[in-house]
Amino acid sequence: MTTGASSPIQVAFQGELGAFSQVATRQLAGDEAVPFPLPTFQQVFEAVANGTCSAAAIPIENTLHGSIHENYDHLLKFDLGIRAETFVRIVHNLIAPPGVHFADLKRVYSHPVALAQCLKFFDDNPSIKRIPHYDTAGSVKMIMEEGLKDAGAIASAAAAPIYGGKILKKSIEDDRQNFTRFFLLRPNSAPPEPPPTGHVKYKTTIVFTVKNVPGALFRCLSALALRDLDMTKIESRPLRGKPWEYLFYLDFMGSPEETAARNALGHLREMADMLRVLGTYPAAK
Amino acid sequence: MTTGASSPIQVAFQGELGAFSQVATRQLAGDEAVPFPLPTFQQVFEAVANGTCSAAAIPIENTLHGSIHENYDHLLKFDLGIRAETFVRIVHNLIAPPGVHFADLKRVYSHPVALAQCLKFFDDNPSIKRIPHYDTAGSVKMIMEEGLKDAGAIASAAAAPIYGGKILKKSIEDDRQNFTRFFLLRPNSAPPEPPPTGHVKYKTTIVFTVKNVPGALFRCLSALALRDLDMTKIESRPLRGKPWEYLFYLDFMGSPEETAARNALGHLREMADMLRVLGTYPAAK
Repeated sequence: MTTGASSPIQVAFQGELGAFSQVATRQLAGDEAVPFPLPTFQQVFEAVANGTCSAAAIPIENTLHGSIHENYDHLLKFDLGIRAETFVRIVHNLIAPPGVHFADLKRVYSHPVALAQCLKFFDDNPSIKRIPHYDTAGSVKMIMEEGLKDAGAIASAAAAPIYGGKILKKSIEDDRQNFTRFFLLRPNSAPPEPPPTGHVKYKTTIVFTVKNVPGALFRCLSALALRDLDMTKIESRPLRGKPWEYLFYLDFMGSPEETAARNALGHLREMADMLRVLGTYPAAK
Repeated sequence: MTTGASSPIQVAFQGELGAFSQVATRQLAGDEAVPFPLPTFQQVFEAVANGTCSAAAIPIENTLHGSIHENYDHLLKFDLGIRAETFVRIVHNLIAPPGVHFADLKRVYSHPVALAQCLKFFDDNPSIKRIPHYDTAGSVKMIMEEGLKDAGAIASAAAAPIYGGKILKKSIEDDRQNFTRFFLLRPNSAPPEPPPTGHVKYKTTIVFTVKNVPGALFRCLSALALRDLDMTKIESRPLRGKPWEYLFYLDFMGSPEETAARNALGHLREMADMLRVLGTYPAAK
């Protein structure tokens, strides 16, 4: 979904231009959004908090690797709200400088996680050496800048035109069930998103802590279950200063605009030690 | 607790000699256990699975950083059982070669996480540069081998005597609530641990999947809650091949030797899609 905003917005993301986060940025904020690459997730959150950017696109979980826990921690620390979610299928492409052919390749650069997701490609081509690099799109940037004649890079298709590379092989990843879920974040003080067109289901993300007594989490989950609200995810994170106690991040289908969800949040607030709604947004399909 | 085994056992752990995992090894398997350092967690699990080592000590969670998710994934893949748990307080020490004094130090090496846990020390000593290294104990090894005259390392107290270093400052970590929980693992075919002396409470760790219907996790947790069994931790991990579905790793106080816990596991087995008991062991204090 797009924000429908009339003026272009600057959207912070972690990585180089052409990263999968930039693909998410387009899905979340539309073609007019200006991608604003930054080196770390901390800097991405800061850029929105201090007004340098009006929004951020952050990965929150991947179907192979699990949650990006650092971003859950940042969601608690910063006063930003979740305004949208999207899924990006992680498709790895073999990219080389124009004029370099597949038979020329002696080495291929990429982020270690991307290299590890293309094992079949390397098994089928044992003469090609895999070399870890700090970033997927950054490895395309590097082989182009260095003008390497025997090297390729593995990255998103979006990275190729940005740096002038050519896609030699599409979709060389081992597992096609590789998706990353991204959030669009804005300051909580920003006006609400324009309502999406068509029928949408809403999802709400909350974070809460429970009293340190037996059955406390079970009772908190009853606030949702007894109202037939569908919990789609739960994630625990350590609670600072209280060893072996936890924060829970939870997603459920519903919006506080609806009676059942509103009552569930009220009920949960009675039982939880702390409760914060991080955002309500149209559920991605 | 110690295993009480009469012959020395080789215990695999990740890291260099003197790592915090080696401290855990001693707590878990006694002074007679022979520590067996390996570069990766994958290799640690393999060493026990293929019989090179009779046990492994692995970190599973830290009170500041959360779970070591990779090890949860290995627990599912390998047929090893959890036989004991222990907590290690992470105490960082400034170590230097003998003859090097505090005033001589221009740089200090350690793992990036350890450097980030001693920010106050570096703020108080702005002339000392922090330099990231691949391992805490490995940084002590390196400054000793290189015979550096202006460098120190941050590591466990155990690392100092192993490499001949001298502790210049004890306990320079910012946060004293920094504990890591470790498991002792053995093949499931190994004989049971000798019963511990004194009164102990048992803890059980399980992994399960739920049917993809609303309320499924809540119903599974009811098997424990309705029997007043105390769940001490829940962790979710992505389920391979089923995007946006999860495996749940759960700890609760109790042992299948006790009626309530045994019935709870039976009840859970009725409701879960898959259920495996990863181990029952005396709870650490």
